[in-house]
Amino acid sequence: MKITFLGTGAGLPSKDRNTQTTVLDLNPLSNEYWLFDAGEAAQHRILNTNIKLGKLTTIFITHLHGDHLFGLPGLLTSRSFQGGEGRPLKVIGPRGIKLYVETTLMLTGSHLNYPLEVLELNGGEVLTINKVSVNVQPLKHGISSLGYRLKFPPKEGRLKQQKLLTAGIEPGPIYKEFKTRPVVTYNGEEYITEDYKEHPEPGKVIAFFGDTMPVETERLLADHADVMIHESTYLDGDHELSHKYFHSHIDDVIQLAAECHVKMTLINHVSNRYTKDDIEALTHQLKNSHPEFNFQITEDYLSYEI
Amino acid sequence: MKITFLGTGAGLPSKDRNTQTTVLDLNPLSNEYWLFDAGEAAQHRILNTNIKLGKLTTIFITHLHGDHLFGLPGLLTSRSFQGGEGRPLKVIGPRGIKLYVETTLMLTGSHLNYPLEVLELNGGEVLTINKVSVNVQPLKHGISSLGYRLKFPPKEGRLKQQKLLTAGIEPGPIYKEFKTRPVVTYNGEEYITEDYKEHPEPGKVIAFFGDTMPVETERLLADHADVMIHESTYLDGDHELSHKYFHSHIDDVIQLAAECHVKMTLINHVSNRYTKDDIEALTHQLKNSHPEFNFQITEDYLSYEI
Repeated sequence: MKITFLGTGAGLPSKDRNTQTTVLDLNPLSNEYWLFDAGEAAQHRILNTNIKLGKLTTIFITHLHGDHLFGLPGLLTSRSFQGGEGRPLKVIGPRGIKLYVETTLMLTGSHLNYPLEVLELNGGEVLTINKVSVNVQPLKHGISSLGYRLKFPPKEGRLKQQKLLTAGIEPGPIYKEFKTRPVVTYNGEEYITEDYKEHPEPGKVIAFFGDTMPVETERLLADHADVMIHESTYLDGDHELSHKYFHSHIDDVIQLAAECHVKMTLINHVSNRYTKDDIEALTHQLKNSHPEFNFQITEDYLSYEI
Repeated sequence: MKITFLGTGAGLPSKDRNTQTTVLDLNPLSNEYWLFDAGEAAQHRILNTNIKLGKLTTIFITHLHGDHLFGLPGLLTSRSFQGGEGRPLKVIGPRGIKLYVETTLMLTGSHLNYPLEVLELNGGEVLTINKVSVNVQPLKHGISSLGYRLKFPPKEGRLKQQKLLTAGIEPGPIYKEFKTRPVVTYNGEEYITEDYKEHPEPGKVIAFFGDTMPVETERLLADHADVMIHESTYLDGDHELSHKYFHSHIDDVIQLAAECHVKMTLINHVSNRYTKDDIEALTHQLKNSHPEFNFQITEDYLSYEI
């Protein structure tokens, strides 16, 4: 799988960073894309990638602030003309998303040529989308804000080929049965297939956070995540100021990652007040002061393989 | 004055053309900008110019199709952080624009720090904004679509300095009175000032069209315009097809320009199906077949001095 950041800025676009848009490429699990938030010009960014709108099947909106949302109507309408015809799309977000989508499409006389489902959530729900378990939790941002914890299905363990051969089981269609069934009969003998397979690899966990100040529900999302995508609008300075604006300070993120044993943290929602040099200096400083904190401050068009 | 095209495409953005956005720089009449339509990423385009959002005082929306509108909410909210604080902004458009703006701002929890006035028009109105007379006419596009004819105030004729000197009127504060008053008394004599001035230069007329198929009201907008900005979604091919989609064919635009004695036509809303080479070839062909038609097919970032 691959996460691509198409907008990593905060509040409003700058020349360097667009507003929030992140794409998850589900390959090889599935030939589709999921989008997390849709800042204005998300579709323009997508034009610069090889992502096809027709393969975009689910859009998760974390909250309704404009820098996470204003690109949604354009994505929905352009998708009709860019391979989306007849291909269902699901939009998931907090309460209000339905009225926003419906009012916008109605007033602009927009008719989509594919089935659109809009799902409003409060947090607390667990959905299953294409074998992926999605745990949704409410965050704390002064406006309803959601985090999404994605738990992918475990990867089946590989066959122990040597052990099969030793038992006299030759390669052929029977191997597929060993892969997919718990018990297999071969030459009149019964085999418990798990004895002939490596342990399954646990499914990856990715936690996408909406904007938030620290709140207890964050732990449910971050717990032992392989990758956590989290805002840090305040990469330095005053903690109180960040919480006053319902945002996270980098120290909050470091603490959350440590307490929840997060393997990798990708930091987005970077304020325009930080220059490229600032980011470089802050990264260097953090790597020194918190060597255990495995992180990257994201940039537009940066991709991360999982 | 200067017209700058920031989005000249039709329907949806491409790598070459963004959706509809045109800026009018009112200098030297006034140190402000007016915007005509706001396609998605209008604010991103503006970031690449020296236009300040704080100096944007009026936004004219021709109609509510997304390719003319989806950039409006982002412009409104970003303006609060980019010099707009306390500076009033007027948004003018067809019915529905008020609900669109209000719903969008409300659902996204957006609070503007400047007074916003939203004016809904049907067409048929004549407004005066900063000495500019704005004649609004309804067009024919399957959805309420408006055209705006801007008539600028005449430019005062220059003083005939030689004639003044011959009459014994020496340069000084009295010259300002000759410029601004109809009658002036000097050394006990009364002077009719228009005898001492060149004829005033008539104010320029600019006609901005929303998307439309041919309709009678177009003539009221285009009549003897110095510059007409008009769509031509169909630069070639079938007339019937263009009218079926409530759009203009290039032949409609040529006819309108000829019958209304338009001095210059700037063509926008160019379909993505035309490549750069197509546009070049079509331009060449039109210049040959209609030498009397003074026109330019616009491009993003093209500026035109008036």
